[in-house]
Amino acid sequence: MNVQVIKIGGNIIDNPVELEKFLTDFSKIEGNKFLVHGGGKSATKMAESIGLVPQMIEGRRITDAAMLDVVVMIYAGQINKEIVAKLQSKDNNAIGFSGADGNLIQSTKRNHPTIDYGFVGDVKQVNTTLLKTLLENGIVPVFCAITHDKNGQLLNTNADTIASELAIALSEVFDVTLTYCFEKQGVLQDSEDDSSVITEINEVLYKELKEQKVIHSGMIPKLDNCFNSLSRGVQKIKIAHHSMLQNPDISHTTITL
Amino acid sequence: MNVQVIKIGGNIIDNPVELEKFLTDFSKIEGNKFLVHGGGKSATKMAESIGLVPQMIEGRRITDAAMLDVVVMIYAGQINKEIVAKLQSKDNNAIGFSGADGNLIQSTKRNHPTIDYGFVGDVKQVNTTLLKTLLENGIVPVFCAITHDKNGQLLNTNADTIASELAIALSEVFDVTLTYCFEKQGVLQDSEDDSSVITEINEVLYKELKEQKVIHSGMIPKLDNCFNSLSRGVQKIKIAHHSMLQNPDISHTTITL
Repeated sequence: MNVQVIKIGGNIIDNPVELEKFLTDFSKIEGNKFLVHGGGKSATKMAESIGLVPQMIEGRRITDAAMLDVVVMIYAGQINKEIVAKLQSKDNNAIGFSGADGNLIQSTKRNHPTIDYGFVGDVKQVNTTLLKTLLENGIVPVFCAITHDKNGQLLNTNADTIASELAIALSEVFDVTLTYCFEKQGVLQDSEDDSSVITEINEVLYKELKEQKVIHSGMIPKLDNCFNSLSRGVQKIKIAHHSMLQNPDISHTTITL
Repeated sequence: MNVQVIKIGGNIIDNPVELEKFLTDFSKIEGNKFLVHGGGKSATKMAESIGLVPQMIEGRRITDAAMLDVVVMIYAGQINKEIVAKLQSKDNNAIGFSGADGNLIQSTKRNHPTIDYGFVGDVKQVNTTLLKTLLENGIVPVFCAITHDKNGQLLNTNADTIASELAIALSEVFDVTLTYCFEKQGVLQDSEDDSSVITEINEVLYKELKEQKVIHSGMIPKLDNCFNSLSRGVQKIKIAHHSMLQNPDISHTTITL
């Protein structure tokens, strides 16, 4: 049986018109599907409006207790419930989840030798039994990037990682396609040229593209996640614009081992 | 089969020590159970800290679009997920829900002849089929006071009403006990005397107590809700301190027709 795991990034979340278009495309996908959403800029905006100064190290947010409150509010509250309500209006029986709900995604507070990331969780375990039951009941799970440690502590977790860990866990039971949807059509050979989509990237090409600096900064952890997912059982991974969901002929990037 | 629907008010939510005690008592309840939580003062605090001025008419919040964002964040995000994570740490397999999730509680935007309540929803329909499936899978549903209209709009709904409408809908399938937990032991004959708990209130006594002004202000809609729930099928209703959940001999108020 097939499952699609679709992850959308902050640029879609932050753009109400694009979000609406994405949700329309997503709602038309038949069969088992999951949505994983990132946070966009609203958590940072909210943090600023209540006087917090967000801290980042190497592209990752440092999550102190006050910032954790904000990301839980925005990701699990505002964004997640808005998406769920919109999918319900499109006759998708969505339920929004954090990893704490149903103990679906348990994580461990990150213990880094030199950097204190604060309340950041690395995924430890996905509860596939309950996820399977939910799918059997026609539910469309919508995950935000919040997990928990099973000891009562919520933790902030990277949304790309949530998507890949969900896909890996589900691949024990299903054939899983993982799609990262963003504002471009895929990984570009030339970041200035939207038509320069690289249609397939394998590990050899990935190494070359990194050396040529075609792939750099934020795209590196994203692709590392992809290869990790493929090696751990995910069948297919795509990086694409969401219009590809309903028009598979639109060019996009497929990641292969 | 029995189901307990337990509603906790804002004074428990706002007091971390009481909330922890309540959740410990709640987690020990065996069998099917639901938790419904109100919002406490944190939505008002958050609204103030971002410069919104909350408006109330007759004890009910007027929910404009900005205030709706705040209540969704706080009720469905912060409070709901904190409760879920804590119940998970106490080995209750909690899932947090708004009414939009799984289309569990659908409502209609209130259309009042003279007052524009804003984005406030009156409950129209409860999806008992999915609730039953969740209970069969050992899930402990935790509801915040947010619903939706199935057309993509989230709506703010009174938490007491959510609790009573859930109890009424579930009473078609189960024997339902609805308990309103708050900081007192029950309805008091003398509000200054915590030991003056009225152990049973029926409709005749209710009328008398209202005439004597023993029952007034916020307690009136609460008790109206109770009698409405009893007449629509709920088996048993209690107003109690949460310590009664594990010690049924502690005095409390039972509402009967």
